[in-house]
Amino acid sequence: MRNLNAETITDAVLERQKNTPSPRLKVIMTSLVQHLHDFAREVKLTEAEWTQGIEFLTRVGHITDDKRQEFILLSDVLGLSMLTVAMNNDKPAQCTEATVFGPFHVDGAPHFELGADISCGARGIPCVVRGTVRGLNGEPIAGASLDVWQSDEDGLYDVQHPDGEARARGILHSDAEGRYDFKSILAVPYAIPHDGPVGDLLKAMGRHPWRPAHLHFMVQAPGYQTLVTHVFRSDDPYLDSDAVFGVRQSLIADWKRQDDGSYVVEYDFVLNPAPDSQ
Amino acid sequence: MRNLNAETITDAVLERQKNTPSPRLKVIMTSLVQHLHDFAREVKLTEAEWTQGIEFLTRVGHITDDKRQEFILLSDVLGLSMLTVAMNNDKPAQCTEATVFGPFHVDGAPHFELGADISCGARGIPCVVRGTVRGLNGEPIAGASLDVWQSDEDGLYDVQHPDGEARARGILHSDAEGRYDFKSILAVPYAIPHDGPVGDLLKAMGRHPWRPAHLHFMVQAPGYQTLVTHVFRSDDPYLDSDAVFGVRQSLIADWKRQDDGSYVVEYDFVLNPAPDSQ
Repeated sequence: MRNLNAETITDAVLERQKNTPSPRLKVIMTSLVQHLHDFAREVKLTEAEWTQGIEFLTRVGHITDDKRQEFILLSDVLGLSMLTVAMNNDKPAQCTEATVFGPFHVDGAPHFELGADISCGARGIPCVVRGTVRGLNGEPIAGASLDVWQSDEDGLYDVQHPDGEARARGILHSDAEGRYDFKSILAVPYAIPHDGPVGDLLKAMGRHPWRPAHLHFMVQAPGYQTLVTHVFRSDDPYLDSDAVFGVRQSLIADWKRQDDGSYVVEYDFVLNPAPDSQ
Repeated sequence: MRNLNAETITDAVLERQKNTPSPRLKVIMTSLVQHLHDFAREVKLTEAEWTQGIEFLTRVGHITDDKRQEFILLSDVLGLSMLTVAMNNDKPAQCTEATVFGPFHVDGAPHFELGADISCGARGIPCVVRGTVRGLNGEPIAGASLDVWQSDEDGLYDVQHPDGEARARGILHSDAEGRYDFKSILAVPYAIPHDGPVGDLLKAMGRHPWRPAHLHFMVQAPGYQTLVTHVFRSDDPYLDSDAVFGVRQSLIADWKRQDDGSYVVEYDFVLNPAPDSQ
């Protein structure tokens, strides 16, 4: 313990953690320390690079507040978020697939009646969204909660605007036949916030910050697994280069242009039974 | 790219980063993504654990300010700091060894003449510190800058006190024979700040937050490698369980108690020539 070198220090740290009371935390911290040290050894991290890493994380921490979550953004662009979603949402093929949560969800969004216009003045081309919420056997799920959020046509979510008003965001409930519908605005591709450290990292890696157009949904109903997902637009140029790796073919829908210039998109959700309901 | 799973996503992220202009950044980000993903797969990270991780890092970011650096503390307790120091300070055996920088260094510390009392009112038992700064061939190094910092007897550095006055911290220069000496206070063991997220993590892992008593030195001279190190006390109970893994046998000195209750410690530094001076 008095003369640890670059090889022996890993075992010394693991030895120190060996009495971690929670077996799960012990598993996590053992793997984390091993990989963190292996990474540093593999690249032979210099002291100047270590300092840059500390400064980078400090910037990520300081730009994060109740409206902006740069750590989620970092996890998203490094593929960690989608990897975690993929590992934890193994479901029957008929079920709607999950994708990343993203940093723009807000607890306590306003509630709306079916058919309502949830845009509340958000800029964009009008769009009707409708479909059904069903179970694996096709049974309609009545009263399912659909928490919806999306950006405006400038690519900004309401929380990115200074006035803090809820717009293009809301909670609705499916009817007795499992149907839902609401009015909002056309989803458009947008750049994730790239005026901070994550944007600098993307730029340094020669990566663009764009996400294909999408509408966020969190669908919940008693007896079913919560579904966090998006519905994407089939005509989007970024479907094959989503900055956060969240696209799934099964989540892509046709957003149909109407004669009056507005749009309609239909998407049907299929929820998986909750583990304790099976 | 539209149907990435928990295995294929890693190659997809690396593919996206392949045009990183800086070869070194590409090496670092490739290894980082690979290890980050391997870690998540190895422990099969749940979505709830991912959220806990995001919340933990957010707390680390928010408690960090110009006086407190919780990311360095986190790196320290996970052994990453000492690992980085160990990898980057391969020197001839006669040279003084390096150890962790820690989170309490302050740029622009006050300057003192040799012999001065740098404690400036910090609470503690008086202690004289003296020794020499030499090169590998025993040549005295005149005018070497010694940037010194330490905690008071309550285990707190000046920056942890609300008044922000510099105490037990200062910069001195060796004389023509390479000698230095100053008055300060006796170093004591102390607990690293553990009222924040890093303290919570240590507690959850059943680890104590104590560091053995030490005096920090950063020694610099033209033509020589900068040395960042500590001098430890041989009678300290935490020498074999330093919370940040920084102890080296060669850095331990006898701090001798004098008849009047004060202490004297002598330590001689040997600097390595700078690479471009060899």
